[in-house]
Amino acid sequence: MSVQKPSIPKGTRDFGPAEMARRNYIFDVIRNVFRTYGFQEIQTPAQENLSTLLGKYGEEGDKLLFRILNSGDAFSEVDFDKPLTPQVCEKGLRYDLTVPFARYVVQHQNEISFPFKRFQIQPVWRADRPQKGRYREFYQCDVDVIGSKSQVNELELVQMVDGVFARLGVRVRILINNRKVLTGFAEIAGAPDKVVDITVAIDKLDKIGLEKVKEEMALKGLQADGIAVIEEILSLEGGFAEKLAAMKRLFNGGSASGVVSETGLRGLDELEELFGLISAAGVSAPVSLDLSLARGLNYYTGAIFEVKAQDWEIGSICGGGRYDNLTGIFGLPDLSGVGISFGADRIYDVLTGLDLFPASLASSTKLLLAVMGADELRYVLPIASALRAAGVAVEVYPEPSKLRKQFEYAEKRAIPFISINGSSEMEAGTVNIKNLVSGEQKAFPRDAMDDILAFLQ
Amino acid sequence: MSVQKPSIPKGTRDFGPAEMARRNYIFDVIRNVFRTYGFQEIQTPAQENLSTLLGKYGEEGDKLLFRILNSGDAFSEVDFDKPLTPQVCEKGLRYDLTVPFARYVVQHQNEISFPFKRFQIQPVWRADRPQKGRYREFYQCDVDVIGSKSQVNELELVQMVDGVFARLGVRVRILINNRKVLTGFAEIAGAPDKVVDITVAIDKLDKIGLEKVKEEMALKGLQADGIAVIEEILSLEGGFAEKLAAMKRLFNGGSASGVVSETGLRGLDELEELFGLISAAGVSAPVSLDLSLARGLNYYTGAIFEVKAQDWEIGSICGGGRYDNLTGIFGLPDLSGVGISFGADRIYDVLTGLDLFPASLASSTKLLLAVMGADELRYVLPIASALRAAGVAVEVYPEPSKLRKQFEYAEKRAIPFISINGSSEMEAGTVNIKNLVSGEQKAFPRDAMDDILAFLQ
Repeated sequence: MSVQKPSIPKGTRDFGPAEMARRNYIFDVIRNVFRTYGFQEIQTPAQENLSTLLGKYGEEGDKLLFRILNSGDAFSEVDFDKPLTPQVCEKGLRYDLTVPFARYVVQHQNEISFPFKRFQIQPVWRADRPQKGRYREFYQCDVDVIGSKSQVNELELVQMVDGVFARLGVRVRILINNRKVLTGFAEIAGAPDKVVDITVAIDKLDKIGLEKVKEEMALKGLQADGIAVIEEILSLEGGFAEKLAAMKRLFNGGSASGVVSETGLRGLDELEELFGLISAAGVSAPVSLDLSLARGLNYYTGAIFEVKAQDWEIGSICGGGRYDNLTGIFGLPDLSGVGISFGADRIYDVLTGLDLFPASLASSTKLLLAVMGADELRYVLPIASALRAAGVAVEVYPEPSKLRKQFEYAEKRAIPFISINGSSEMEAGTVNIKNLVSGEQKAFPRDAMDDILAFLQ
Repeated sequence: MSVQKPSIPKGTRDFGPAEMARRNYIFDVIRNVFRTYGFQEIQTPAQENLSTLLGKYGEEGDKLLFRILNSGDAFSEVDFDKPLTPQVCEKGLRYDLTVPFARYVVQHQNEISFPFKRFQIQPVWRADRPQKGRYREFYQCDVDVIGSKSQVNELELVQMVDGVFARLGVRVRILINNRKVLTGFAEIAGAPDKVVDITVAIDKLDKIGLEKVKEEMALKGLQADGIAVIEEILSLEGGFAEKLAAMKRLFNGGSASGVVSETGLRGLDELEELFGLISAAGVSAPVSLDLSLARGLNYYTGAIFEVKAQDWEIGSICGGGRYDNLTGIFGLPDLSGVGISFGADRIYDVLTGLDLFPASLASSTKLLLAVMGADELRYVLPIASALRAAGVAVEVYPEPSKLRKQFEYAEKRAIPFISINGSSEMEAGTVNIKNLVSGEQKAFPRDAMDDILAFLQ
């Protein structure tokens, strides 16, 4: 076989030790917070039947599915001369965690005790054009409660977001809106059929500004007086109470159109309840009502969330909302759920940008036992075993080598302590340990494990 | 869209909460042991270029690769009427962790400090015919050191195996052999060209017995006197020292053929050194030389390992060995490595069979705060927050419901404590907690966090 220059497919990544340590740190923090709220982890297979995936992500999404050729038995019947029929390709790679979760809930409904509080941290695959920050394989981290309409679930998602970012040291802002309120906008703007157009337009407010949003709504056929209503809403100022009061007035027929929006009013009731729960429970991050928050996903029916880092510009690092019929397509209607997704890659970038990864992640090994010869090796092996039994990460340099080489290894691997033991230590039964950061060096009787452990702290 | 009955592809699995808790337990134990030896985690993408994968697993293996259709940009040019040319299919799913690791080492050789001690826990995909215990998607858990010929590495793998199974509570037997010794067998049997045939045959000794092994070797063309030599070897009894001495004699020309095997003798030297290191370091599981241990993989060049559970029949639960040229195919020759792979599914089955999973895994939530009404909900929310801040997994039942329903939920989720608070508790400022296992019930001032935590232990 000829020698190949190795590479990986466009848009995919290898994660080396340093990157993995940082990624695991993020996922561990998230997992631990989820667990204190009673959420349980599940995993679904990377491959799903194409019938499960197709038609769930729109036409664009269907194109971005990675399809897997039938293999094994089937493969022997697949000939590269035959036409590429759909029959040779019945499976695809998971595109997100939401659709497989809906499939899971329906398939396992008889084993699940509802409300079902689950989280899932797995890679997904999309055949998007790779570019900076956009990958063809990336992890999603989703947490959902399904089978309960209570807004205590929304509250807990907000609390978990708060807890995760507090532990990570990232100051965030949590933005909340409600899909029913967006429906209300369209109704009092006299265009109940234009909810999606209005939503898509105002979602861009941050990026393109009010004038462009108005232009876009006009292009979509919204009348001038309707646009004026939306403008009035988007210009509302003040805190939650002020905005709520103003919106109540507008939805109660107080807008230029005079239309009353029952749906909008129900959305406001939900928001009022949720903000009440949030203040009863106590959340450290600022939580605010953002009436321009829309999020593209049409399946949301209640609360909508977005989380932004206060000190790093990167767009939203979490997002989610309530949906009422996610499992309907798989035959289980009327199961309401609410969930939020943590953007692992963006959170990684924020922590990198703000230098918030703990310094301890850089060194995985505490002590290198240098090795001068075969006897010295046998001398240090039981010491290594004892330290490991005490939970300390220890490496034994695998072969007698020049000390310089062993020091270099310790340096490259950021190992903070080195132990060098020769014939004098062996005779005295001692262990000689040097702190490579402070330069301090000390000898210990080799069974003085407590003193050694204290020195390695 | 019509309603679909949901299912997953043949040979794949969903892992629900209970199964995930048990799987994570196994992986966490393994990870923690690896880390105390200074091994670092990496991850590679699920998709590799087909050129990386093809030809590495034999003809059979090539057929078992899952191939991915080009998608995205390319996909729009792929028409289901056009022929299925290799050009529309350039990627495949990872078949094992070894080849991607070799690719990784070569691709990142300038960033790596050798010896490189890595582990990797990720799923792999094989289009095998699904059957009991054989899946098309399953996790592998590999640990390797690359860039060091020292047998300290073999020692550490043995120590890590020992540490992992000690922590899991599984009594194991560690079997060791050496590929050079197997080469020696063929040489002193007068058939140096038949190493693979002899290896394959004696590997089946456990399953088919000596007579059948002899028949198979005869079928492969081994002469009767050669077979007699192999029979003499396989019939050797005694401990390591006895077998070693007997093999030294045979390899030194003491067999019926009188042939001296230099390679075999080098293999024995390696075994002697490794067993010496093992007794110097101390390992709790029995480690023995198994001269019939061969393992199919032809790339092994030195030590070979296999691990079996003593109290559960399931075949080997770990296996590995030393290889000298894994990275050669990707352009980096002469890099010696040694590794071992933990069979996650079999270890899971052993722990299930021997009932060794900790009981604590069954309940992820410690306390359910029942909810009787809106006021009671607001009363318990800060209590939930305080307990979670102390690291306790707490659930708040999300809506006021009949107590029976809330008790049922606690029971189904195996939550051991429930707290029921009504108007009298709210007036008194107390929290009423019941241990659902012992039946004990106690009331605490709601700020007596230490007493509450103690009761929940």
